Amino acid sequence: MKLTGQQLIGQGNFDASGSVVWAINPSSGEKLQPGYLSGGKAEVVHACELAEAASVAFRTTSLEERATFLETIAEEIEAIGDSLIERCTQETGLPAARIQGERGRTCGQLRLFASVVRSGEWLDVRIDPALPERQPLPRADLRHQNIALGPVAVFGASNFPLAFSVAGGDTASALAAGCPVIVKAHSAHPGTSEMVGRAIQNAIAKCNLPEGVFSLLYGSGNELGQALVSDPRIKAVGFTGSRSGGTALMATAQARKQPIPVYAEMSSINPVFLLPTALKTRTDQLAESFIASLAMGAGQFCTNPGLVLAVRGTALNNFLKTAEQAITKVAAQTMLTPGIYKAYSDGIISLTNNDAVHSQGSGEQGEQPNLCQSHLFVTQANHFLNDERLLEEVFGSCSLVIECDDIEQMLLVTRQLEGQLTATLQMDDGDLKTAKALLPILEEKAGRILVNGWPTGVEVCHAMVHGGPFPATSDSRSTSVGSAAIFRFLRPVCYQNLPQTLLPNALRDNNPAGISHLFDGKRMS
Amino acid sequence: MKLTGQQLIGQGNFDASGSVVWAINPSSGEKLQPGYLSGGKAEVVHACELAEAASVAFRTTSLEERATFLETIAEEIEAIGDSLIERCTQETGLPAARIQGERGRTCGQLRLFASVVRSGEWLDVRIDPALPERQPLPRADLRHQNIALGPVAVFGASNFPLAFSVAGGDTASALAAGCPVIVKAHSAHPGTSEMVGRAIQNAIAKCNLPEGVFSLLYGSGNELGQALVSDPRIKAVGFTGSRSGGTALMATAQARKQPIPVYAEMSSINPVFLLPTALKTRTDQLAESFIASLAMGAGQFCTNPGLVLAVRGTALNNFLKTAEQAITKVAAQTMLTPGIYKAYSDGIISLTNNDAVHSQGSGEQGEQPNLCQSHLFVTQANHFLNDERLLEEVFGSCSLVIECDDIEQMLLVTRQLEGQLTATLQMDDGDLKTAKALLPILEEKAGRILVNGWPTGVEVCHAMVHGGPFPATSDSRSTSVGSAAIFRFLRPVCYQNLPQTLLPNALRDNNPAGISHLFDGKRMS
Repeated sequence: MKLTGQQLIGQGNFDASGSVVWAINPSSGEKLQPGYLSGGKAEVVHACELAEAASVAFRTTSLEERATFLETIAEEIEAIGDSLIERCTQETGLPAARIQGERGRTCGQLRLFASVVRSGEWLDVRIDPALPERQPLPRADLRHQNIALGPVAVFGASNFPLAFSVAGGDTASALAAGCPVIVKAHSAHPGTSEMVGRAIQNAIAKCNLPEGVFSLLYGSGNELGQALVSDPRIKAVGFTGSRSGGTALMATAQARKQPIPVYAEMSSINPVFLLPTALKTRTDQLAESFIASLAMGAGQFCTNPGLVLAVRGTALNNFLKTAEQAITKVAAQTMLTPGIYKAYSDGIISLTNNDAVHSQGSGEQGEQPNLCQSHLFVTQANHFLNDERLLEEVFGSCSLVIECDDIEQMLLVTRQLEGQLTATLQMDDGDLKTAKALLPILEEKAGRILVNGWPTGVEVCHAMVHGGPFPATSDSRSTSVGSAAIFRFLRPVCYQNLPQTLLPNALRDNNPAGISHLFDGKRMS
Repeated sequence: MKLTGQQLIGQGNFDASGSVVWAINPSSGEKLQPGYLSGGKAEVVHACELAEAASVAFRTTSLEERATFLETIAEEIEAIGDSLIERCTQETGLPAARIQGERGRTCGQLRLFASVVRSGEWLDVRIDPALPERQPLPRADLRHQNIALGPVAVFGASNFPLAFSVAGGDTASALAAGCPVIVKAHSAHPGTSEMVGRAIQNAIAKCNLPEGVFSLLYGSGNELGQALVSDPRIKAVGFTGSRSGGTALMATAQARKQPIPVYAEMSSINPVFLLPTALKTRTDQLAESFIASLAMGAGQFCTNPGLVLAVRGTALNNFLKTAEQAITKVAAQTMLTPGIYKAYSDGIISLTNNDAVHSQGSGEQGEQPNLCQSHLFVTQANHFLNDERLLEEVFGSCSLVIECDDIEQMLLVTRQLEGQLTATLQMDDGDLKTAKALLPILEEKAGRILVNGWPTGVEVCHAMVHGGPFPATSDSRSTSVGSAAIFRFLRPVCYQNLPQTLLPNALRDNNPAGISHLFDGKRMS
């Protein structure tokens, strides 16, 4: 596939007039062709006009049509072949095997949402039949289903160039809900974005859908993104990135004449609790598996274990010794972008210069540009409780161990934590009482609670919650990974006494679509 | 029951130190005893501390315990007897029969939520079992359920002194979700509020629940409400009232260190479409039933039909003549408060002074204080499209008829409308084509669409949506009436590889609570 550097608006490809942005190969600093001309307000207006025009036709496609569309996108992405893998590794510095796995995950995710669309559970069909004889007043016929919110703006993430970018989780769930999608490409992987964007364009043409169902815009800086979120035709936003970027979009969305929901997945340090019995009986195994989780992918995961809590003592000292040995062997890995590398380095300098923080060890340093050197730091709970800077995420392979006086202090620290995507308990049978004391606090802090695993590795399934209280996300009532993500882009509508011919298909008598529903409050499968 | 004028904080009753507020009998202007001393920050902190302390214990009560609690509240309200009806009619000017009906609705609503809690559907249980043999990577055991958000602030509404006040829909749904509730009483009916608040206090004592599950605060002006929404222990807000009041709370909630959801039900003019065939064949019946809906309860309903759209012509002229005759016979009715009467009068003056608006008729005037005189106005679509003031709700028995040139212009006007709670089609078979053209627009504008009824009268059931796009509400993804209202106060949590003993009851093996759930994405009833 020949890359053009153009904006993909509907089925058309357009040259923009803003400044040029090139992808940079982070492992070499090399500039990759072609340049991508930044779009602005004009491109946003064009894409939003098409999206609005496509909105009703798309949201009223049949379940089968929409599911087939999602499957066709997956096929079209697979049909790109190895050139996608090659371009993506060049743009991200990630190894080919990782990108191949991520392509599988991306296409699997699209197919999962196809099955979700077909099941119709997401419609939340509820039927309360008329009760004409009821006293003192009769009841009307009332029927309820979810409908799509309307056009959605999606901001591609840097750290999952396929699975959370142009055809990633936000796009897949919004399309599944029946929302047209306008993606703002992440400037770190514009070529990968264009390839995937063209795959979606092809799928739209093959499925005879209106062209406005999808557009892909490029823009440097914040101008294009702000214009997109401000446009009155946009009805919701999906974002994965920094806390500052996410909160800026939240403010823009709230300042609109009609405020809209923003689903921003932003910042999490993913506390891991090494409970006493587990720490004592599995010291070395925990230390080694911890460092493996920490170092994976240069730590560039939102679920990276950035905080470890344990009670001070011999077992913790032994854990730290083994972790120190393990981290020294961790090879330096290329980070995604020079910007991410710079932010990581600044975070490491800040921790290193903090007198209350002790450096417990670090990985290999390497000599190429943008290499992430893994770091492990230790501090005392007293210090942690009095230094808000230590709550901030350092995005990369860096973790901070908090030494607590006792379990009481561990509970105290836990209550002080901000919202998190995950919380992990390393525990054995002897730790059950402590785990039971921690659990209710963790439920209020995190979207996912794990026992005896590591938070990296987010399964795309029905029970997943990749979300959590602010600042982990802007909206703890939702998930951005897994099939429940579809609910972010829906709202309920009630139809009272509509004739059959006006009712949406799923709400008609005799349940023609065969969808599980509530009838007078009782579940009918 | 003797009224004390005190703040009800947990099981305690406290004298506050702010200014005194008395209820005013709107039909006489008489001051009703006792005075209610306004609380402030100190009362908010006290109530929030108790709510936070009660939060885990309350959200982890069994389904049966929570359902019984809701039923006990209903019994305690009924046990107050006629003194509740008497006080409420004095405070609101509403007739006793209406208050009796509203008491029935309030207690029915609490019992409906009890049945909803027992069914467990609201937990959204999802189980994806471990797949240890899966290639290339095994899958962990993942289980999902909703949990309560935490303490909720509820602002009592003036126009439903029982059904949307202290133990109304917001409180019932938040308690059903497992959230402690702190109510700010509406200053228009403090005595009614105290009676119902004491009923909830009694139910808490009888059910042996922690006292912080409920508090009732009084405060004039915005100070107490703003302090409540700003308190970091409050995790969500339910509000029914004015657009200015709702948007102020939205801004406060977004400005917090941890932003929280606000469910504000604010402003709606509830368009009614008189489609040509129906208008021609049922002219007089439509006009008479329209005026009956408009005048009910002095028009003090959020679903009052404040806007009527029809195509200009003989049928519409005849409709207007009959409506004019009908409205002249409408007796003046006492409005809820002097403030509501003043706002209504200002709205009428503004419409009367608008040169592009014609007064089609008005009801009886009456001579007591705060009497609502019904009004019907007419304007042309061209004017309506160019005068944003005409989009504003005039809360009371007032409606504006828009004469359109043709169906095309009716569609144009419809596209310009803001978000609404309801939209109503008056249609016969000959109007099907027009209805099909309107329906997709209405789905994007309103939470509930009715055919051949009137929007007043909101059924409390499973399929109800009392919500809609901004400014009808602050969050179109939810309803404030009906059993789905419980979802406003919940968030999902995923449990990965937890031992059975740590799992919440509903997620354990063999489905001990017998709750409908998704197993590997498939519905199991």
